[in-house]
Amino acid sequence: MARYRSIRQRVDHLLALAAMLLAALVVAGCANPGDSASVAPVQSAQTQPAVAAILPSWREGTAREAIIKFVDDVTREGSPTFLPPAERIAVFDNDGTLWSEQPLYFQFVFMLDQVKAAAPKHPEWRNNPAFRALAARDPAALVGQQKEVLKLIAIANSGMTVDDYDHAIRAWLATARHPKFQRPYTELVYQPQLELLAYLRANGFRTYIVSGGTIEFMRVFAERVYGVPPEQVIGSSQVVKYEMRDGKPALVREPKIDFVDDGPGKPVGIYRNIGRRPVLAFGNSDGDLQMLQYTAAQAGPHLALIVHHDDATREYAYDRQSKIGKLDKAWDEARAKGWIVVSMKDDWNTIYPPDGKQ
Amino acid sequence: MARYRSIRQRVDHLLALAAMLLAALVVAGCANPGDSASVAPVQSAQTQPAVAAILPSWREGTAREAIIKFVDDVTREGSPTFLPPAERIAVFDNDGTLWSEQPLYFQFVFMLDQVKAAAPKHPEWRNNPAFRALAARDPAALVGQQKEVLKLIAIANSGMTVDDYDHAIRAWLATARHPKFQRPYTELVYQPQLELLAYLRANGFRTYIVSGGTIEFMRVFAERVYGVPPEQVIGSSQVVKYEMRDGKPALVREPKIDFVDDGPGKPVGIYRNIGRRPVLAFGNSDGDLQMLQYTAAQAGPHLALIVHHDDATREYAYDRQSKIGKLDKAWDEARAKGWIVVSMKDDWNTIYPPDGKQ
Repeated sequence: MARYRSIRQRVDHLLALAAMLLAALVVAGCANPGDSASVAPVQSAQTQPAVAAILPSWREGTAREAIIKFVDDVTREGSPTFLPPAERIAVFDNDGTLWSEQPLYFQFVFMLDQVKAAAPKHPEWRNNPAFRALAARDPAALVGQQKEVLKLIAIANSGMTVDDYDHAIRAWLATARHPKFQRPYTELVYQPQLELLAYLRANGFRTYIVSGGTIEFMRVFAERVYGVPPEQVIGSSQVVKYEMRDGKPALVREPKIDFVDDGPGKPVGIYRNIGRRPVLAFGNSDGDLQMLQYTAAQAGPHLALIVHHDDATREYAYDRQSKIGKLDKAWDEARAKGWIVVSMKDDWNTIYPPDGKQ
Repeated sequence: MARYRSIRQRVDHLLALAAMLLAALVVAGCANPGDSASVAPVQSAQTQPAVAAILPSWREGTAREAIIKFVDDVTREGSPTFLPPAERIAVFDNDGTLWSEQPLYFQFVFMLDQVKAAAPKHPEWRNNPAFRALAARDPAALVGQQKEVLKLIAIANSGMTVDDYDHAIRAWLATARHPKFQRPYTELVYQPQLELLAYLRANGFRTYIVSGGTIEFMRVFAERVYGVPPEQVIGSSQVVKYEMRDGKPALVREPKIDFVDDGPGKPVGIYRNIGRRPVLAFGNSDGDLQMLQYTAAQAGPHLALIVHHDDATREYAYDRQSKIGKLDKAWDEARAKGWIVVSMKDDWNTIYPPDGKQ
């Protein structure tokens, strides 16, 4: 049956994705990619000329100029490339584009922590080799255990209502700290991107997140941190089922992935959720390639941008060889097609928001 | 495998849905439900008191009062049930709630017409009993052919890019005429609902469609006709696949249903696409029951409404026994829980927009 064949492909895709994540996990357990220098102090406010009131954390240069010119071109009345506000759709990847993603996608850390948190309810895990390897943070023991670990993740991250899961995410984000920066994960968002999101919205754009992460994880902080409301968060999704619990309607998480909003899934997610082609797309890895292609392949005005993680001191440096956020094919295509490559090191004068400011 | 089990359930659900549609098709081929009276002339503008500038096509009565009171309660500053605009989410079913659905869901008529249109490319169909029955409009011959007809529909409505399919829908809507009213389908939208949508938006609500119909079909006219932009159309969806065609990115329709936004699927679609619980839900059939329950089961302000098709002269009269738009369980629950039941006959002084006005 063709129907089953496609499901099988999706499952295969998931397993491949999972294998990659697990491989990354193993790597992460051994060594952080990039430089392991201690946290760089947030730059003190530089003396900025008045003109830099727009995008103050962006240094003068090609990237900043291209953004400002594009926004002007599509918003200035009488401009030959003027776009009505309804068509000003900007899409942003999340992991590695709006916040950090090293040494391991933050959502994946959360999901693994959920496995540990669920352990008391699962005495049968005590002798499970995958669980023991996870609990012991023993990367070597994890090799070959990918499928088992994924099963544990599926069990620990499903079965509850979406409201209960929402509370679990909130509780985790409130207390978890990033291993290198020792800050809450939601503080590891990029200040220049917060400014860009706000700048675009001030110019009539609607800003969407289009991420491989799941909608329920991002929605918990996207509005507060990025100013992106829940209905503008597009992501991977779990199967959820409507049922009555204690006489009340509930949406219950099933242990199955429904949609993978990554790679070729991103233009699909955009089509389904927005139904218009974006005019600005910002990514950082090969997982964003198709979203960038889809945005760039239109006759009308468009802007495709990529964050290049080349700042080992203030964040991480990685690209073609990285297990997480690999930037290889998209890098080549960016070069070939003239997409804007944003150097974290050169184009951004600040990486993270000053403490407590975000 | 739990994963396959749920897929199987989904397929079963689809087949059940399809069987129902086909049954309806058979019925429709024999007789129109409801009265077959010729088109009632659109009522001339009644002399309305000045106060009826709000919702002029709604007659004075419980339903109109409840709507106006609810909107006032959630929008008036200082009201104990005031809601900020971000929380003013209103969801509307489409078929039977915003436009007519008899004698057969309009989208289904389109999909069947696509089968006929595709026939020249499929000489092998000539001897296909399902195709012959369809082409001959022979309902009796269709009995037992449901699966075969669905296969034809899947073939004729997939394989092309979403852009090409969009053009096909537009071309069909421009020329197809409703069998009873002899008007374009997009003119068979309910004037009182157009007024309600506009009234809600004027009061800071965002109006969403949440329908069993597919997103690409509704998006073609939802913005122009209802004022509902593509990103606020939630519906069933086909699997679409990203690929390069002639070196350009394309989204290609696969012959597989991805999500059925009907019945228990509606709260799921709302969760996925909006991520907030609506405060107003409007439906007309058992397929809207769960959406209505989900909206009504909250402590805060909410309004649940149902259109009752009881106007055989101006539209159709049907409820508990209808194959299309069956209103049975939702009717009982509406009565038990005090949801607003809107009588088409008594509460609406006009059904369709005056010619050419829409």
